Amino acid sequence: METLSTVADLREAIRTLRPYLKRIGFVPTMGYLHAGHEALIRQAREECDLVVVSIFVNPTQFSPSEDLEKYPRDLARDQGVCQRAGADLIFHPDPLEVYPRGHDTWVDVTELGEVACGKFRPGHFRGVCTVCAKLFNIVRPDRIYLGEKDYQQLQILRRMVRDLFMPYTLVSVPTMREPDGVAMSSRNAYLSPTERQAARVVPRALQLAREMVEHGEQETAPILTAIEASVTQQPLTQFQYAIIVDPDTLEPMRVLTHEARLLLSIYVGKTRLIDNTALTPKAPPPPVNLPE
Amino acid sequence: METLSTVADLREAIRTLRPYLKRIGFVPTMGYLHAGHEALIRQAREECDLVVVSIFVNPTQFSPSEDLEKYPRDLARDQGVCQRAGADLIFHPDPLEVYPRGHDTWVDVTELGEVACGKFRPGHFRGVCTVCAKLFNIVRPDRIYLGEKDYQQLQILRRMVRDLFMPYTLVSVPTMREPDGVAMSSRNAYLSPTERQAARVVPRALQLAREMVEHGEQETAPILTAIEASVTQQPLTQFQYAIIVDPDTLEPMRVLTHEARLLLSIYVGKTRLIDNTALTPKAPPPPVNLPE
Repeated sequence: METLSTVADLREAIRTLRPYLKRIGFVPTMGYLHAGHEALIRQAREECDLVVVSIFVNPTQFSPSEDLEKYPRDLARDQGVCQRAGADLIFHPDPLEVYPRGHDTWVDVTELGEVACGKFRPGHFRGVCTVCAKLFNIVRPDRIYLGEKDYQQLQILRRMVRDLFMPYTLVSVPTMREPDGVAMSSRNAYLSPTERQAARVVPRALQLAREMVEHGEQETAPILTAIEASVTQQPLTQFQYAIIVDPDTLEPMRVLTHEARLLLSIYVGKTRLIDNTALTPKAPPPPVNLPE
Repeated sequence: METLSTVADLREAIRTLRPYLKRIGFVPTMGYLHAGHEALIRQAREECDLVVVSIFVNPTQFSPSEDLEKYPRDLARDQGVCQRAGADLIFHPDPLEVYPRGHDTWVDVTELGEVACGKFRPGHFRGVCTVCAKLFNIVRPDRIYLGEKDYQQLQILRRMVRDLFMPYTLVSVPTMREPDGVAMSSRNAYLSPTERQAARVVPRALQLAREMVEHGEQETAPILTAIEASVTQQPLTQFQYAIIVDPDTLEPMRVLTHEARLLLSIYVGKTRLIDNTALTPKAPPPPVNLPE
């Protein structure tokens, strides 16, 4: 396994190997890898001949008030995770390599990027789309592996790839969770032990929503009210938003006419945690065929 | 020569041919082809094994007040020009093919797109970048041929391709002119005979600027004043802007320290015409070596 830090070196490495490869897999990350990333790399390893992992804390997706500087970084540890999971190449560029002097181009998915997290993090998804367009075109993989944990990001990147006719296949991988149900996230590193305990409110809220739907709830308003109440009850957490949306368009749903996605964001202390779950409404009872 | 109207058909045609091709050339156009486009196609023909021309009047680069509906169109004539110039494939899609339902992704080159024409046509270059990113990725050519007449557009697309690490080479081709010096443009079709006469003020203004520089003028302000005066003198024309900029960054230059680009935009009647020229300052006299 090699770690490369320039676009030229990475392209040269891939160009040399390309004729012998049937399929290149790519896992874009911001590093500080956890079992969730590892699952992405392992799946890429199973499905592809060459597995490239990028480790790049993208400055343009952080707002000035956000945690760019203190975002956790540990390249040596990340290299160990990549090696163990079967990556072939790590791309670990300097910001000036990705955003050279005079950088002036932005990619934005506008409507999908304005709801949910986009409301609270203006410019965030523009930064995500821009860096992903760059990284995808640098690596030019066949398959790109993304986690479902950042569900809105996943759908936005799907839309970007579709709209710009990029020749890449996106593969989504289910969220990995700690034994207590909390979703794996690099930001969990910020949590104190008591905050980590409090974070359990998130998977519990998702579970509550699923149970309400299983018990026949079809309106989204009472589900959202119950979620907000369950988060607010916990003193260390602060509710940011909960929204139940169409899984593709991310448009809010009032009634569960088909499978929906619940997106939830809360603060635990100063740490923002997001999570999501599918909500599958009970099939209506089959129509009774009365004898004619 | 074939004319294809769906992305699927075009991709299939290129996919089938690709193994036998060394180089694909692409000429993106809005149709109503003139000798300028023909020069692009001919150069592509000389340099590539497969030449694809797109004919697509891109709705997103027109503002609501602009001339989308009355933009001139003549597919049969365009097919004749393409055939004669040696094109292999014409891509002539429906707007819904390029902007399918739910289209939500935009590509923008922000600073380069705000000066000159960008000031007067907000959103124009966002539309240009977005459609070009789409078309480039649909065709996936090796070389893309663009005219120098739309100089700001050329530089913006160069920047987009560089910034997004798109694997395409842009080739710029000098502006083709009518015998009286007026630049070829599909919009010349809007001009009445007297307006067409009046349009000569544009190449004359460019010539005036070049002469001033040849005679040693190094400050840009007097050149711009002279250009505005020469345009304003002609009763049928209205001056929009003249700007002398660095050829790459499009930043305004006050002194001609190195080769610059003069960009000019005027109205003749209701028709907006743009043109540009290089301004090459005289080399300063070599320093006199005094004997020590």
